[in-house]
Amino acid sequence: MRLKCIVAYDGTDFAGYQVQPGKRTVQDEIERVLTRMHKQEIKVVASGRTDAGVHAKGQVIHFDSNLQMAEWQWKKGLNALLPDDIHVLHVAPVVANFHARYDAVKKEYRYLLHVNSDPNPFTRNYIVHFPKDLDLATMQMAAAELTGRYDFTSFCATNTSVQDKVREIEKVAITQEDDGVIQFSFVGDGFLYNMVRIIVGTLLEVGTGKRKATEMKEILQAKDRNVAGKTAPAHGLYLWTVWY
Amino acid sequence: MRLKCIVAYDGTDFAGYQVQPGKRTVQDEIERVLTRMHKQEIKVVASGRTDAGVHAKGQVIHFDSNLQMAEWQWKKGLNALLPDDIHVLHVAPVVANFHARYDAVKKEYRYLLHVNSDPNPFTRNYIVHFPKDLDLATMQMAAAELTGRYDFTSFCATNTSVQDKVREIEKVAITQEDDGVIQFSFVGDGFLYNMVRIIVGTLLEVGTGKRKATEMKEILQAKDRNVAGKTAPAHGLYLWTVWY
Repeated sequence: MRLKCIVAYDGTDFAGYQVQPGKRTVQDEIERVLTRMHKQEIKVVASGRTDAGVHAKGQVIHFDSNLQMAEWQWKKGLNALLPDDIHVLHVAPVVANFHARYDAVKKEYRYLLHVNSDPNPFTRNYIVHFPKDLDLATMQMAAAELTGRYDFTSFCATNTSVQDKVREIEKVAITQEDDGVIQFSFVGDGFLYNMVRIIVGTLLEVGTGKRKATEMKEILQAKDRNVAGKTAPAHGLYLWTVWY
Repeated sequence: MRLKCIVAYDGTDFAGYQVQPGKRTVQDEIERVLTRMHKQEIKVVASGRTDAGVHAKGQVIHFDSNLQMAEWQWKKGLNALLPDDIHVLHVAPVVANFHARYDAVKKEYRYLLHVNSDPNPFTRNYIVHFPKDLDLATMQMAAAELTGRYDFTSFCATNTSVQDKVREIEKVAITQEDDGVIQFSFVGDGFLYNMVRIIVGTLLEVGTGKRKATEMKEILQAKDRNVAGKTAPAHGLYLWTVWY
């Protein structure tokens, strides 16, 4: 039987999602628990990897199992064995050919940032502290330039093996919450390596007046990573939702 | 010159406020930074200690210095050298006989708790996850029984050297925020060792129906720690404000 899980994790103490020898990773913790439950090696497939320090509110994974358990038993059993920084929100059986990575049609990433003179020690791993004022309206204008189907080479880390860098961003929203936290939301059919963090880093340069909002299309056309802004820190980024 | 600082810290990775050989403590980090700035040993005095895992939004400390710096320079200098889980919010010169501990006239502690079937990995060190429903009105009734001047022996950990256990609680408030977080606020002239955590633990037993709201006065009168409820976990507790 194939099972699909929705998983939240605090990326702070992980060297990212994907298994790396000698490092603590999310995949490794989940596979360790499943292997223990099954008394045989179980491998999981995720919708995609996340980097060190990046969080997930709704990562999706699948795996195959011969155990007979109700959904609530799966959820309870997994959470009892997983560490506190990983929590399984939902478990459900799926069709045998469901694939967490290939069947994902849309994803949402969010990025959280707080403009404040004083950093907040309680949110230091979850919300990026930004000490300068940001012009939200100009950032929103710049962000709107990115919706559509484009070659996002300029917004992709150079150390990637992916060839096709055309992606579609369906929606970008930048909102300020009541508590002052600025939330960037990106919905698209797929995201390249560091794409959201490079977009946010570039938008922050727009928000502080270092760049113009109208530069975004030029950056896209350049197809050159050096033309875009800095990569924003990992700890503000959340894989929020994956759609199938 | 004597200086007073208001300090926030995330208690998660500390073995408490007070210096303990071989352990990472808040006092130790602050004294290390001040000693480095002064090139001579500097000791600090706090309004009181906090236990391992307990947080502070407004701990107050004082120390003496012969350095000539503006308030903003003090704040900037200290924060540049302190680790990310300690943040100095305010520095100001005070009269030479100001004492962070003896001059404190009133303190507020808060305790944060969330009733939810799913624990939240992102708040696991900051808000206590409570899986059972709580009767807030009954808890508020019970809490109101504690305001006034009483011998709080029943609500004090037994491993304390303090003799006089009479304290005055001026105000107790239990409120539920929009995001569902239950916030306990305790304002009083002083708090005994583990007092807030034992009160919260007892109130939780009232909230789940294990105890009656009317028991609080009996518990006070018993002057016996064994009569009160369990000590609630450290990570929900915040030293919020100290008044002088």
